[in-house]
Amino acid sequence: MKVSSRLTNITGGGSGGWDLFNRARAMKQSGIPVTELTIGEHDTPTDPSILNAMHAAALAGHTGYTTIGGLAPLRERVAQRVEARTGVATGPENVLIVPGGQAGLFAALMATCEPGDTALYIDPYYATYPGTIRAAGAVPKPVKARSRHGFQPAGEDIDAAADSAAALLINSPNNPTGAVYSGRTLADIAEVCARREMWLISDEVYDTQVWSGTHVSSRALPGMAERTLVVGSMSKSHAMTGSRIGWIIGPQEAIAQIANLTTHTTYGVSGFTQMAACHALDRGEPFEAQIAAPFRRRRDMVMAQIAAQNVVRAIPAEGAMYVMLDLRATGLSGDAFANLLLDTHHVAVMPGESFGAAAAGHVRVALTVDDARLETAIAQLLDLAAHETVPNPG
Amino acid sequence: MKVSSRLTNITGGGSGGWDLFNRARAMKQSGIPVTELTIGEHDTPTDPSILNAMHAAALAGHTGYTTIGGLAPLRERVAQRVEARTGVATGPENVLIVPGGQAGLFAALMATCEPGDTALYIDPYYATYPGTIRAAGAVPKPVKARSRHGFQPAGEDIDAAADSAAALLINSPNNPTGAVYSGRTLADIAEVCARREMWLISDEVYDTQVWSGTHVSSRALPGMAERTLVVGSMSKSHAMTGSRIGWIIGPQEAIAQIANLTTHTTYGVSGFTQMAACHALDRGEPFEAQIAAPFRRRRDMVMAQIAAQNVVRAIPAEGAMYVMLDLRATGLSGDAFANLLLDTHHVAVMPGESFGAAAAGHVRVALTVDDARLETAIAQLLDLAAHETVPNPG
Repeated sequence: MKVSSRLTNITGGGSGGWDLFNRARAMKQSGIPVTELTIGEHDTPTDPSILNAMHAAALAGHTGYTTIGGLAPLRERVAQRVEARTGVATGPENVLIVPGGQAGLFAALMATCEPGDTALYIDPYYATYPGTIRAAGAVPKPVKARSRHGFQPAGEDIDAAADSAAALLINSPNNPTGAVYSGRTLADIAEVCARREMWLISDEVYDTQVWSGTHVSSRALPGMAERTLVVGSMSKSHAMTGSRIGWIIGPQEAIAQIANLTTHTTYGVSGFTQMAACHALDRGEPFEAQIAAPFRRRRDMVMAQIAAQNVVRAIPAEGAMYVMLDLRATGLSGDAFANLLLDTHHVAVMPGESFGAAAAGHVRVALTVDDARLETAIAQLLDLAAHETVPNPG
Repeated sequence: MKVSSRLTNITGGGSGGWDLFNRARAMKQSGIPVTELTIGEHDTPTDPSILNAMHAAALAGHTGYTTIGGLAPLRERVAQRVEARTGVATGPENVLIVPGGQAGLFAALMATCEPGDTALYIDPYYATYPGTIRAAGAVPKPVKARSRHGFQPAGEDIDAAADSAAALLINSPNNPTGAVYSGRTLADIAEVCARREMWLISDEVYDTQVWSGTHVSSRALPGMAERTLVVGSMSKSHAMTGSRIGWIIGPQEAIAQIANLTTHTTYGVSGFTQMAACHALDRGEPFEAQIAAPFRRRRDMVMAQIAAQNVVRAIPAEGAMYVMLDLRATGLSGDAFANLLLDTHHVAVMPGESFGAAAAGHVRVALTVDDARLETAIAQLLDLAAHETVPNPG
């Protein structure tokens, strides 16, 4: 029996851009020492104090069904943290706990789009975005951000695409580009959303990883709290990727309705995981800074390496755990370059094309290995780019 | 801003039958000692050995992203267990690990129905079924099972409703009725599914709680492996309700496509939870029997209490952790009786109407408190029923 066409259409049967990642994994499993700069996963496990808190909560009896929307202590803590970071009045009734940021994105799209509605997203984009929009029965429509503008999207480009769109999905700090949306960019986005009566879905899972400028939550802009769903997560901020816990922040009525959706899709989040998240949040900003520190340090190191040569251009990495490199001077596609780099130096980076047409001729470097190894890998990448840029004689 | 109508339509804005449950919870929180026989949750927490295995796995580094479809050791164990229990050849490629049975149901409906397709389900039904079908964009259509037939659905009733339906959702052992589908019932279901080219979604989360007769997995019937998705879970069999871990068993190609769906909806299950599930499964059938034992014992006790009077009739409780009682001799609705019982004796049971029209005039009793307390509560329920059945003089 065949499954529904909506399932087979999610990625159009394609690889979703993971060919290089899979090839690197296969090489590694065959014994080749590949330096993987592909996925956004910390090179450290979750802190033992968080795991101990999880175990204590489990032994204390947090092993049964929980309130669907999330345990009161966690909703309270998330609300306080959001209010403190954004200045927007936020209570537990504005918070829904979900099993990870991806579950938050899917639920937010289900909540903002009727089947067949258009949802806009910014290209380059995180790999799951168009598929998530399709999984929710909506129609994905990309809006190109431009490399030469540091991948800040332009209000007029969003407006031009917005005809009858129900929602706009943004991500700042941005994966894959490292852009942190400027005040101007966000004001333009807010203006278009209000005028077009669009929901804004704001993926802010990298909000503790800001290296320059200031991260402003879209929800904090005038008039936006009522039309914005913010997706957050413990994954990147607290090195808890495998705990699968995140949240949606939004208007009370929308949050209640999305909670009812999750009764029918995921049915709550483990109580012990929620108590572990409470513990992690209680460790406060110093802990978040500690988790973010290696990426800041490595970003500075890589940007200095890039500054010392002329072939490869770096998109200013203002936030998140990636640096996007413009390799168009080599004349190669991001995909061709990434494959060549993997073959010649056993260094795996993600082809820009994996993240959309706007990132063609780029590669994304995840800052997720130790500094020395990263420095070597970047030096190899720059050597290869320089070599490829020398015109062939004859 | 309003959320999508598909969200507000999931339960039609209603309570989903949880009014009595919520009223009992509120009474309890105000200090009244309510005996809650409402939800299907063990009166014991998850076994510490399982929690210790989870903690050990977390400390050993199972805290990052996992393979989307599930860790190989868990898929392998689930496949072996399914094959051993059902006799159907099953490999890891037939297993998808999901964050709980409810997530499995939702994904199975997304996989088998196009938007707007009809999905059949058997009334009485587990509370989330129609809402889950609606959440997946399909149209729920109930098929009544009859109290006098022990709530075994009839093949001709399914066939009569099956016109252009894409899927049939069944649950055996059944919540709320305690029915275990007979060989005849399952053969009829298989025949209709094959002839009508329908997918069968078989919710078998109570498959370790069988008190009489034999549980047969629908997937084991001739020709059904290719058109059946079985939803399973660690919740009921291993007292791991709060761990949110379950699986879908099905044809390899369907499983691969549903895995791709979950990349866009839930993005995997915590590695430490999966390792805890491996440990729990390794404890084998003796552990499963130990978890099931209290429900078997209490079921026998309650059935004996019922047999000693003539007003209330019990549906033969062949499996699962509930007994369904027919109170129609009282002339009261299940809802009226349940509310009266709560007010007069502080005993909370679920009105049959919460589970569909076919269970009107019934109540569902969850066997989820200690034996002595349950015995007292049942005695009070029977007293009340007898009292209500005495014709009023005048």
